[in-house]
Amino acid sequence: MHATAAPSPKPTLPKKGPALIERVTPTVEGGRHAAKRIVGDTLTVEADIFRDGHASLRALLRLTDPAGTIREVPMRPMLEHGIPLSAATQDRWRAQIALDVVGMHHFEIEAYTDHYGSWLRDLGKKVAAKRDVKSDRLEGHELVTRTAEALSQAGRRDEAAELRRYATLMQLAPDDAAAVTIASEAALVELMARVGDRPDIERSAAFPLYVDRELAAFSAWYELFPRSQGEKKGEHGTFRSAAKRLPEIADLGFDIVYLPPIHPIGKVNRKGRNNSLTSEPGEPGSPWAIGSVEGGHDAIDPRLGTIADFDAFVATARRLKLEIALDFAIQCAPDHPWVTQHPDWFFRRPDGSIKYAENPPKEYQDVYSVNFDTPDVEALIVALGDVLRFWLEHGVTVFRVDNPHTKPLYVWERLIAELQAQDPNVLFLAEAFTRPKMMRALGKVGFSQSYTYFTWRTTKYEIVEYMTELVGEMNDFYRPNFWVNTPDILPKMLQTSSPAAFKQRFVLAATLSPSYGVYSGYELNEGAALPDSEEYLHSEKYELKFRDYDAPGNLKAFIARINTIRRENPALHRLVPIEFVWTESEHILAYARSNADKSNVILVVVNLDPIAEHHGRCYVAPEVVGVQPGERYTVNDLLSGQHYEWGQDNYVALDPNDEPAHIFRIERR
Amino acid sequence: MHATAAPSPKPTLPKKGPALIERVTPTVEGGRHAAKRIVGDTLTVEADIFRDGHASLRALLRLTDPAGTIREVPMRPMLEHGIPLSAATQDRWRAQIALDVVGMHHFEIEAYTDHYGSWLRDLGKKVAAKRDVKSDRLEGHELVTRTAEALSQAGRRDEAAELRRYATLMQLAPDDAAAVTIASEAALVELMARVGDRPDIERSAAFPLYVDRELAAFSAWYELFPRSQGEKKGEHGTFRSAAKRLPEIADLGFDIVYLPPIHPIGKVNRKGRNNSLTSEPGEPGSPWAIGSVEGGHDAIDPRLGTIADFDAFVATARRLKLEIALDFAIQCAPDHPWVTQHPDWFFRRPDGSIKYAENPPKEYQDVYSVNFDTPDVEALIVALGDVLRFWLEHGVTVFRVDNPHTKPLYVWERLIAELQAQDPNVLFLAEAFTRPKMMRALGKVGFSQSYTYFTWRTTKYEIVEYMTELVGEMNDFYRPNFWVNTPDILPKMLQTSSPAAFKQRFVLAATLSPSYGVYSGYELNEGAALPDSEEYLHSEKYELKFRDYDAPGNLKAFIARINTIRRENPALHRLVPIEFVWTESEHILAYARSNADKSNVILVVVNLDPIAEHHGRCYVAPEVVGVQPGERYTVNDLLSGQHYEWGQDNYVALDPNDEPAHIFRIERR
Repeated sequence: MHATAAPSPKPTLPKKGPALIERVTPTVEGGRHAAKRIVGDTLTVEADIFRDGHASLRALLRLTDPAGTIREVPMRPMLEHGIPLSAATQDRWRAQIALDVVGMHHFEIEAYTDHYGSWLRDLGKKVAAKRDVKSDRLEGHELVTRTAEALSQAGRRDEAAELRRYATLMQLAPDDAAAVTIASEAALVELMARVGDRPDIERSAAFPLYVDRELAAFSAWYELFPRSQGEKKGEHGTFRSAAKRLPEIADLGFDIVYLPPIHPIGKVNRKGRNNSLTSEPGEPGSPWAIGSVEGGHDAIDPRLGTIADFDAFVATARRLKLEIALDFAIQCAPDHPWVTQHPDWFFRRPDGSIKYAENPPKEYQDVYSVNFDTPDVEALIVALGDVLRFWLEHGVTVFRVDNPHTKPLYVWERLIAELQAQDPNVLFLAEAFTRPKMMRALGKVGFSQSYTYFTWRTTKYEIVEYMTELVGEMNDFYRPNFWVNTPDILPKMLQTSSPAAFKQRFVLAATLSPSYGVYSGYELNEGAALPDSEEYLHSEKYELKFRDYDAPGNLKAFIARINTIRRENPALHRLVPIEFVWTESEHILAYARSNADKSNVILVVVNLDPIAEHHGRCYVAPEVVGVQPGERYTVNDLLSGQHYEWGQDNYVALDPNDEPAHIFRIERR
Repeated sequence: MHATAAPSPKPTLPKKGPALIERVTPTVEGGRHAAKRIVGDTLTVEADIFRDGHASLRALLRLTDPAGTIREVPMRPMLEHGIPLSAATQDRWRAQIALDVVGMHHFEIEAYTDHYGSWLRDLGKKVAAKRDVKSDRLEGHELVTRTAEALSQAGRRDEAAELRRYATLMQLAPDDAAAVTIASEAALVELMARVGDRPDIERSAAFPLYVDRELAAFSAWYELFPRSQGEKKGEHGTFRSAAKRLPEIADLGFDIVYLPPIHPIGKVNRKGRNNSLTSEPGEPGSPWAIGSVEGGHDAIDPRLGTIADFDAFVATARRLKLEIALDFAIQCAPDHPWVTQHPDWFFRRPDGSIKYAENPPKEYQDVYSVNFDTPDVEALIVALGDVLRFWLEHGVTVFRVDNPHTKPLYVWERLIAELQAQDPNVLFLAEAFTRPKMMRALGKVGFSQSYTYFTWRTTKYEIVEYMTELVGEMNDFYRPNFWVNTPDILPKMLQTSSPAAFKQRFVLAATLSPSYGVYSGYELNEGAALPDSEEYLHSEKYELKFRDYDAPGNLKAFIARINTIRRENPALHRLVPIEFVWTESEHILAYARSNADKSNVILVVVNLDPIAEHHGRCYVAPEVVGVQPGERYTVNDLLSGQHYEWGQDNYVALDPNDEPAHIFRIERR
């Protein structure tokens, strides 16, 4: 502890104004970051709005779109939205507005005293109490004529004339009750609210809101190493050969094909198969060891083809309504051109040599980490932005960012803002499996989607708890993408290669989250792992894989069916709402999803045990599936095609060797 | 809706720096308002603090007191405070610091990368994994010598020499393990943390924190109309006669004597007894109808005496360790001097006359409301501040503000800040019984204490729910003061004049809340009300009351005993912690309170039914009363003096006609 003499900061005094606007939603860190929404959806904004005394308020929501176009809609107290009064809903206001354009928006709230409305309300109460209201009537008359006068001066003659007509009627009213009737006419009240003086307007901050395209919310990803798409075993795949697999991927119902890095692979310290420290001649190395004399982050591995081949691959994908997601990994092989061009962008040892990446005791000898503490950081960030812009110009509209949590957050905030300013449709997926607060922070700085802990959430308790966390305040800034596997993660449950396990996890990923992903081989129940590890045996990260995608037992029909169900049912297009349903068995998980107007309700029932049959009761509260209490309804299993009659108390049995799940659509009579 | 063309605001880009500091507590509205604490207490500050990558962080809390003196203490991860790891506590840091001076403080958090600590941690991991650490050892040596060099240049020769000594030892270490041992020496680690370079420091905002004196937290109030303290029936009391009651009030254990307005009372439209619209000659009128030809808010009603008499009254109170709280009601009788001096400070009718106060259909003919929308508002606010300063200079250190919710919040924020800048010990009590969000807002803008809904919370469910709300986030800015009655509120339960009801509500107020109040007559079980109303019959607001404070059945001994128990038991000096204890009977409420080190634990058990005996089991979890599982302990009833042996499962029976409550002190063997 030490003491210094410094003046204490003065308390900030507020600006004058009676209204308070607090607890605005959706906001992230008080407006420091943008909340996220989807184009076509309705934005609901709420705030606590109140003032001293008894006067009534009016409030409006003002939404500014990326082009600067402003729309205003009135906010109304929750009670007027049909929401019952409570300590939480009293003095809480809401407005809703459709989102019709992609990009960065801002919204603000204005609140002001409703002088005419307050006067009218008080007049009504006094007349009902049979008070003398002569003076009150004069006051109202004055309010209306003064407003007419102001409109007149502003050249708004029609509105002024309309108000003067009402003022005269109010004056001529034969009695007080008649005056109240005239003063309450909806057209007059609306006109006064719209044009009346707002001397005491209070404005909230302008809160940022990023409106993404639909794909940001609802997407099925397929991860593919193009080099493994050779036409026969041992042959290095190319963009030309890989393009031949795109129709099948489109037919399976995927939206995005994600490619690990496609750049030249370092030759120095190249890793061999199964992460061996040395490689045999001809071994391809890890695609994440980016860069060689053949080029860096803006080059194509010559074995995959040319940039023209890549462009053709993207064009083929586009014709099939597939988008290409590219990996963006900020790290360099020792022979990456940047290492000699910009040695200051890397970490140095005391002897002047450059340090390879490490997370002690783990070591990554084939890559160098980038040093964002370099004095040359501005040039580094510009170069990284240039890489993203290069690929954007070559048709890449989605970036899957490798380990973003090991780079400063401000770098992401800047790069994402820059790229989305150029093309608001561009999406970023954060591949971070780190501590919860950093996962959230990446969502806040702008990542459109994020990898999650789903892979390690397998029991009923774990899944319900995790979903509850995701659909809470995180839902405003963090869009989960549930991956069933990745080249780095072969979960224990899948290491038996049991198709029941593969199906179960697939159904969960594809129906718990509107965005999910699979890494190729999943459809073939590939489950061979390194011992005591979640790493694949003979990992594709270090060697070519040649697969027979039509091998017996493949899950392609199952996957295609689920993706069709997803596309056909809007209930599965958003993360919220999700309602977990009570089931008797600890092994059976059930949840209902619905779209905004509850016209589409999907009830998913999954046996979480890949080995044994489980059964038991399943209680479905009527409101969860949008039926009346006591109402019977049909559940149509979109997987098996079977129909059942359900109500509140039901019985389910699921044998994983048959089918591990029901995906019921609720059909009311 | 309308559209205009305006540029969309640019997203704010963050400053560069790896550390994030989020979710800082205690803060109110993101630092817009001051959190509240008490001098002598320990301030606990917490924040989420994290950065990208694997480097470790250090963080410190910097507290600036009103004189500008700065103290710094290190923040530590929750785990190091003995708090288990969870998603919520991971990356959460805490610091604690004693508060030793009253007034406006500010605190900020600094976080920065711990380069030496990160290097040392990695070195240890690598040595354990038997890696070659030659380069790493050189790196550490360089870190220490570079820091020594910087210290040297700054003239800090001793610290530089100490670092150089360590650097040499590290170099000379015979093997890697020995190098780790030397590099880990606590003195070196501490020195490097304290003096090391902090190139990437991140600072939070400076958050305001108001430190009040003890009385703000812990206070027993007694409300008294001096004019009713005549020496015989019908005689108008004076400050001289009222001073004679002060020793008794001090003996009863009260801290604050609160006086309704003591100013000249308007003669125009003066109210008569029982709120009659007309008064008979000689009727005193309502003290809240402030001002007449005899003066306004800075004058004394001549019937009470002179300002010298008031000063003497305050001096007598001070000798008895009582403080005087004065009512501050911003409203004027029609004959208040301000009405003629500043007619613009009031609301006018169209005919130019001034409007009396109303809240339709209610009317207050004897007072004019003040108009804060006047263009002359600055002069009005200055005049109000002058009134407060006038009474502060006459020894009033506590203001009870009448209906603050009908005046703009910015006025309170400014007036309270001005007065507390002059005397940081001055306290303000908000008398608002309005909607929840305005109640909270008054606490946020600076009121030291607030009236509450306690008066209407009578069932077990209501009390537990309300207390749970108060001890949550509100505890940082809203200090409840539980009043058992006021001149405006005679709760239904007390209208039977049953001493059991009066005792029960008194125990609840005095032990649920560290601050509470009673309005005189309570000790005499006064319960006569206007029909269908919470108003007193023959309300003291409109007439003099002459009471025999020694009347049989009075509660003075009971009140004195409770106040003694309150003073003797620190467990009752703060609002938190409170732990509600399960009891079998719906009519029996039980709760435990304790001080910070659990050396004082009070368990209160109250029968909420003022008529019938209730009994049943009462389970006390060991941690609630600070004992070991299975441990038996003595509960000493501080009301009856009886002792019982208790454990986890107990039996209680309370007959309200005997005593409606136990106030147990836990006494461990």
